[in-house]
Amino acid sequence: MKSFRKDLWYVYPERQGIINITKDVQECLKASGIQEGICLINTMNVTAGVYTNSDEEPMNASFLEWLEKLAPHNPDAKTGSGETEISFLDTHLKRTVIGREVMLAVTKGEIELGTWEQILYFEFDGKRRKRVLVKIIGE
Amino acid sequence: MKSFRKDLWYVYPERQGIINITKDVQECLKASGIQEGICLINTMNVTAGVYTNSDEEPMNASFLEWLEKLAPHNPDAKTGSGETEISFLDTHLKRTVIGREVMLAVTKGEIELGTWEQILYFEFDGKRRKRVLVKIIGE
Amino acid sequence: MKSFRKDLWYVYPERQGIINITKDVQECLKASGIQEGICLINTMNVTAGVYTNSDEEPMNASFLEWLEKLAPHNPDAKTGSGETEISFLDTHLKRTVIGREVMLAVTKGEIELGTWEQILYFEFDGKRRKRVLVKIIGE
Repeated sequence: MKSFRKDLWYVYPERQGIINITKDVQECLKASGIQEGICLINTMNVTAGVYTNSDEEPMNASFLEWLEKLAPHNPDAKTGSGETEISFLDTHLKRTVIGREVMLAVTKGEIELGTWEQILYFEFDGKRRKRVLVKIIGE
Repeated sequence: MKSFRKDLWYVYPERQGIINITKDVQECLKASGIQEGICLINTMNVTAGVYTNSDEEPMNASFLEWLEKLAPHNPDAKTGSGETEISFLDTHLKRTVIGREVMLAVTKGEIELGTWEQILYFEFDGKRRKRVLVKIIGE
Repeated sequence: MKSFRKDLWYVYPERQGIINITKDVQECLKASGIQEGICLINTMNVTAGVYTNSDEEPMNASFLEWLEKLAPHNPDAKTGSGETEISFLDTHLKRTVIGREVMLAVTKGEIELGTWEQILYFEFDGKRRKRVLVKIIGE
């Protein structure tokens, strides 16, 4: 069995939005040399998510609007006891709806994605470097 | 390490609803000959999901009603710039709540499911052939 | 390829709430002797979920309040035809939002978690013994 890991780092320039990371994951697979196996993509930060969808506007903007309705930012909501000024509760809730991880099949050296499926990173607390871990096992 | 993949195809006769695919996945595992490992089931279409739940009515119907409340169909919402008549935004949102994939443990040649757990495919844009990929790795 | 499985059992003393199971999963990995691979944690009961988040109050309590808004307990909602007194529909819906499984990378004998990431079990129908399965494959 072979295994491969790589940290991908992203800075989203605004507080919240989407980055298409499909090519970066495909490059990880190429570097791994793995032909058959599975690939795990997971956000290492509790205020960001990863999922698959078609990468289109205005849908991406609509996803954010929808998440804001499901889990609105509430400036008075605290996550921990030590906080004083900024509330992050909504960012944790939004990430829970989107999900923290994607698992993909690796077949004949390629990631198996549907026709319109792209791997999307959803940032909920941006403007700083954040990490996505890619782990591939197989042979 | 052994690996196995199979495409399962489904046509749901209505726009939205649930298909129990547990037996199809169990047949994949049997065909693979894998005794110990993990099994990935993922929808290859961004307007369908897969999850596990008990397969009961009226709960299945209630799930759809609930999703319609969380992500109502809005005929004016566009997903991409090229669309003119039909809005699919709600189908992408509903699939995000349900999830695109299920990972199951394979032990002694069996898929490990809880007592009431069934593998359910949730169609949000039916009446056409759509694909679910099963990938199993192990030995 | 090596594989390892263990059932973890929990009793949450109230109807709904969160148990941090990070240490139990880390002990599974230690017992497995696996250095490189992946680790699946999945609830074996359709009225409980597992996810990762920072483990903080008041955020944990806020998660439950938020889920109660998204999927309120409705005493009249039936899940199956055989039920007479108690409605469990909301517990299935809440578990669907939270998720049934977490996949983690195993690298150099350690589970890879983000700085604040903990593995949390979310009980929606407690006061009885319930099962979480840990499956690890790798070498």
